[in-house]
Amino acid sequence: MSRPLPHLTAARAPLTREVEVQDEHGARSAIRIPAERPLTVFVDRRELVTLMTLGAEPELLVLGYLRNQRLVGSVHDIESITVDWEVGAAAVKTRRGIEDFDRKTAKRVVTTGCGQGTVFGGLMDELDSVDLPPPARARISQRGLYALLDAVRRQESTYKSAGSVHGCAIFTLAGDDARLELFVEDVGRHNAIDTLAGWMWLRGMDGADKAFYTTGRLTSEMVIKSAQMGVPIVVSRSGITQMGHELATRLGLALFGRATNRHFLCYSGFDRFDAEPEPPRAAPRGP
Amino acid sequence: MSRPLPHLTAARAPLTREVEVQDEHGARSAIRIPAERPLTVFVDRRELVTLMTLGAEPELLVLGYLRNQRLVGSVHDIESITVDWEVGAAAVKTRRGIEDFDRKTAKRVVTTGCGQGTVFGGLMDELDSVDLPPPARARISQRGLYALLDAVRRQESTYKSAGSVHGCAIFTLAGDDARLELFVEDVGRHNAIDTLAGWMWLRGMDGADKAFYTTGRLTSEMVIKSAQMGVPIVVSRSGITQMGHELATRLGLALFGRATNRHFLCYSGFDRFDAEPEPPRAAPRGP
Repeated sequence: MSRPLPHLTAARAPLTREVEVQDEHGARSAIRIPAERPLTVFVDRRELVTLMTLGAEPELLVLGYLRNQRLVGSVHDIESITVDWEVGAAAVKTRRGIEDFDRKTAKRVVTTGCGQGTVFGGLMDELDSVDLPPPARARISQRGLYALLDAVRRQESTYKSAGSVHGCAIFTLAGDDARLELFVEDVGRHNAIDTLAGWMWLRGMDGADKAFYTTGRLTSEMVIKSAQMGVPIVVSRSGITQMGHELATRLGLALFGRATNRHFLCYSGFDRFDAEPEPPRAAPRGP
Repeated sequence: MSRPLPHLTAARAPLTREVEVQDEHGARSAIRIPAERPLTVFVDRRELVTLMTLGAEPELLVLGYLRNQRLVGSVHDIESITVDWEVGAAAVKTRRGIEDFDRKTAKRVVTTGCGQGTVFGGLMDELDSVDLPPPARARISQRGLYALLDAVRRQESTYKSAGSVHGCAIFTLAGDDARLELFVEDVGRHNAIDTLAGWMWLRGMDGADKAFYTTGRLTSEMVIKSAQMGVPIVVSRSGITQMGHELATRLGLALFGRATNRHFLCYSGFDRFDAEPEPPRAAPRGP
């Protein structure tokens, strides 16, 4: 029964570089900024797309991109992903080719959360087939949410050293515990979530007992990607847009935003949330 | 000599909506969140792309998108842009059709600042033809920079009422003055800058004496778009990525990031900047 998994290279490249800056005092100093490099994806020698990425986990990024774009049905259909930073290319080799390659990549639906992201045709149509576990079986407690936020806070990151990247993480929820499985950063928050998707796909991991964390906003495509991966709970440091809210309500996802330390807003999926309300705010202290 | 300009509708739609949220105290309340709606662009009845947008200035967004993607050479080649929110469509009518439509839209270069943004083929190749005015003729003073930041701070915005949108503005620089020409918000920062591009195109406005402000990061595509529009100075509330830095250095743009109130970092184009250094920081006060 054990079908072969794809062979992935482990290409590495520096994640930050130093540049000289001048501040308002006229002082020059050196700071670190995040890398951003083009990665052109070829599938069976055909050019698919060029992604601009930090470069932390390029093979998993490509894997997750193929999954989230619904270009490949099973991870076992991929024989190998070979990344070569010398030429900025990822060569994907499939076992049996991609059926309907032209049709699948012909239609551009540009979902704009923050950039003008490409999601190939038909993604929205597929949402009706999304099947998330019922609230009774996939929920998060307020303590679990705090545990998740605490783990994010303690995570070492390129963001802390160089700024200007988005972070994304996947957690396994169990009772009041939230176990960090993987933390990924990229210049694009879509890349970060695609990388998580690739990692889960490789492990045949189900999303039912998982929660996503993202530093980015809860826009339509973040909700879509989470739902596609079967993850019913999404937590963000940022806010939400109308389509993100509508889709989550329709699909039954729990969304938490503005979440840091012990503050958050639950936007949807109240029935997946075991609230343990904090005491009311104390009156402000005198002068 | 007066060639006709395109006719644009003035489609309007609500920019925010109210949703119910629950906070860490268990308190329910209503907050406003930004709209996010699909706008499918048809050019001469052929579907081009679907943009997810706040919907503040859809006609200018489509105009700027066509410009920044280099799909139309002159604003006068466009006869009309008709936006109908009932069906979420923008119908573009050109005067003479688009030459090489298929070729121009065939190649996807996905530039990822924050999303996975689509820039149709060949954009990067064109950068060598970018011609910005020399530093002696296009520069900004520290006071001018403060004036710009002050105008941004005083601007009423959807961000202030509902969060989760990016803002973008164009300024005319003259001496130590920075005059705000247009302030635009969108769920995607690319949409916001495209909208500014459309507005400038419609007015035949040159970028040489202009500065861009964006709340988003200075990634490769923000620098590319600014350079394409001939604007040599870009100011951001956020930070920078390596490709943004490299491109700006190569093209001779001045980039300022982390810019709020009287703080900023100049990342590149020091020779376009008339520094008037603030006095050194005072030593921290005692306990």
